Amino acid sequence: MSNFQMMQALHIPAKTKIVHLVLDGLGGLPREPGGKTELETANTPNLDALAGRSQLGLAVPVGPGITPGSGPAHLALFGYDPLTYDIGRGVLEALGIGFDLKPQDVAARGNFCTVDDAGLITDRRAGRIATELNQQLVNLLRAITLPGVETFVETVKEYRFVLVLRPTPPGSQTLHANIRDTDPQRLGVPPLMAQAEDQASEPAVELVNRWLTAARQMLQAHPPANSLNLRGFAKDPGLPRFGDLYGLRAAAVAVYPMYKGVARLIGMDILDVAGEAVEDQVETLRAHWDRYDYFYFHVKKTDSAGEDGDFARKAAVIEHVDEAVVPSILALDPDVLIVTGDHSTPAVLKSHSWHPVPTLLWSRYCLPDGIDEFGERACFQGSLGAFPATHELPLAMGHAARLTKYGA
Amino acid sequence: MSNFQMMQALHIPAKTKIVHLVLDGLGGLPREPGGKTELETANTPNLDALAGRSQLGLAVPVGPGITPGSGPAHLALFGYDPLTYDIGRGVLEALGIGFDLKPQDVAARGNFCTVDDAGLITDRRAGRIATELNQQLVNLLRAITLPGVETFVETVKEYRFVLVLRPTPPGSQTLHANIRDTDPQRLGVPPLMAQAEDQASEPAVELVNRWLTAARQMLQAHPPANSLNLRGFAKDPGLPRFGDLYGLRAAAVAVYPMYKGVARLIGMDILDVAGEAVEDQVETLRAHWDRYDYFYFHVKKTDSAGEDGDFARKAAVIEHVDEAVVPSILALDPDVLIVTGDHSTPAVLKSHSWHPVPTLLWSRYCLPDGIDEFGERACFQGSLGAFPATHELPLAMGHAARLTKYGA
Repeated sequence: MSNFQMMQALHIPAKTKIVHLVLDGLGGLPREPGGKTELETANTPNLDALAGRSQLGLAVPVGPGITPGSGPAHLALFGYDPLTYDIGRGVLEALGIGFDLKPQDVAARGNFCTVDDAGLITDRRAGRIATELNQQLVNLLRAITLPGVETFVETVKEYRFVLVLRPTPPGSQTLHANIRDTDPQRLGVPPLMAQAEDQASEPAVELVNRWLTAARQMLQAHPPANSLNLRGFAKDPGLPRFGDLYGLRAAAVAVYPMYKGVARLIGMDILDVAGEAVEDQVETLRAHWDRYDYFYFHVKKTDSAGEDGDFARKAAVIEHVDEAVVPSILALDPDVLIVTGDHSTPAVLKSHSWHPVPTLLWSRYCLPDGIDEFGERACFQGSLGAFPATHELPLAMGHAARLTKYGA
Repeated sequence: MSNFQMMQALHIPAKTKIVHLVLDGLGGLPREPGGKTELETANTPNLDALAGRSQLGLAVPVGPGITPGSGPAHLALFGYDPLTYDIGRGVLEALGIGFDLKPQDVAARGNFCTVDDAGLITDRRAGRIATELNQQLVNLLRAITLPGVETFVETVKEYRFVLVLRPTPPGSQTLHANIRDTDPQRLGVPPLMAQAEDQASEPAVELVNRWLTAARQMLQAHPPANSLNLRGFAKDPGLPRFGDLYGLRAAAVAVYPMYKGVARLIGMDILDVAGEAVEDQVETLRAHWDRYDYFYFHVKKTDSAGEDGDFARKAAVIEHVDEAVVPSILALDPDVLIVTGDHSTPAVLKSHSWHPVPTLLWSRYCLPDGIDEFGERACFQGSLGAFPATHELPLAMGHAARLTKYGA
């Protein structure tokens, strides 16, 4: 029996409350040798005081040396082994724009591209066309109809869009999505047609190829976006439901679509947040405090600043969370509070990275490490050590007195 | 998907260089309670300074309490799970004497032994005969011919030799090596004939038993080595190739045959080294620096000193590596440098041991632990913690920016 299966077997009712505060891309690196990271630089009196009463450690999202995307990184935080469970790229892309994906939908990420007179690709990203042009082209493509499915084409941004096929009427057929990318990933060759990786996916491929033919024909008159490719065909993977697994009434307090989407895929309730500020999220948390056992509270802007390479802004976002979020959560008197990130996004790298993520676990029943600082190097001195991120939920469940004894 | 499979799936081209400096049997123990280990005793200013800019940890070669042989210990360092992949004893023994083993060869380790007039074993090691006598007997045994195979008999030392059967002409037949040892492992019983563990191995067994009959007859006149046994029948296990797995042009800078042999089994290039000194190895590294991405640099004499129980000599070898190897490697400006051992060989034990191995990981993108000492107890305060040795290559790949993101 895996730890994952144990959660379902051992969880018991309780009145305790768990808050999982996730600062996206929290982990960082110094700007120069011998320097401090973003988190170590930030002035965080509330997190530091909490650290002194907590256990600290470094969470490994996927595995040693592996830089995770947001999908696998979040699955790990929610206790789902990211090497076992997989959210396809098409699904994540659809979730990322807030598309209301249904279990029967087949989703793919689309890229506009440029082809020459001979039909060979000269730019896989169509010169990164403006989002406004993307919207105009998507409007054209919406005219393409297919038998037996509803077709959705949605702008993401620049050269990126999402295509979704939905069987209609519901239940009329089951489409499968083991379909190869049409993007040959290099220049000087033509865009490919879709190909099934198994027999069950043949009907979907037939529809996709009808759509591709019509779409590419329609785009001929619109250089530089005079063709397109589809990648990452996927369906809702039908993940085990978080509520069943842990016996928790769970809610997501998130602002960005992708994170709400991932939480929705595992069956969490998605709470309305009035604005984009963390203060709005705190307000939502407070308003729903009595109705849930577990809150996933997602802060996006640490990651955005890291991706932009803006060390100072990332530190400032952390300081703002320290001031505007942490005391408010503590004032609600949770039973367990975990502060962590889904992965690291060091500003010096301007991207996600493989570095483990500083993590703090507080509960009435934790044995504090007595380290009065929340930072990468403080955390690796902590008693949680370097641990798989998938351990966070089981630890939270234990500390929330929500697991019965294993064995007699 | 395992971490191992992820390496093949995620590796991307890069120009970065990785050096894996392996001090064989590096880990040690104090001579007396309260004392220092060999590594802690050695004066290592270069390693200590490097430690201060690195992450430290203790590598667990195979598992808790498990003392590894050189084969599994090295497989782990190269990222191959030593519980999944196995190099048979006959193969390792052949590699150990520099025998050019082919994929079609069946190899076994041989032991001369002594039998009494009734043919019962009285000494399983033939009184540890001199290597010179071994060579004379091996010369006799080379006269034995078998149909359809070329037969090689090679001295190892004392009572040990290697037997290899090679189908000839190449491709004429495939021999299998699931064959039971002929050594009954106790006295007062006769040496056994070979027995197949599966049907596919019957043809090889028939050849082996013809050879055994002729060899034992021939030896009757040569007490104390008047009989022999064969053990550890094995073939090249056909391990996944290192270059395919990681996308690295990999080279071994090693002096001793077994280590070159293991590296060759996974497809590394084996570089010529002019002499047996580490300075010669450094010269080889420098000469081939531009042509490879990954260098396995193996230092043997730490282990030899440990096996001899010579604490001071082991510390002196470490000091010599600190002075003559470490600065020269750093001067080449690698992107990742790992300093570790394949296992521990404490001088007080005069043998390999189960103790985890002090390990240092340096890269531009490591967050240094700030511990200015390279030693067992310094390492267990490091942020890598106690970690499986199989993580070293994935970590090196991440730090060398040679892995793409996992998932979207």
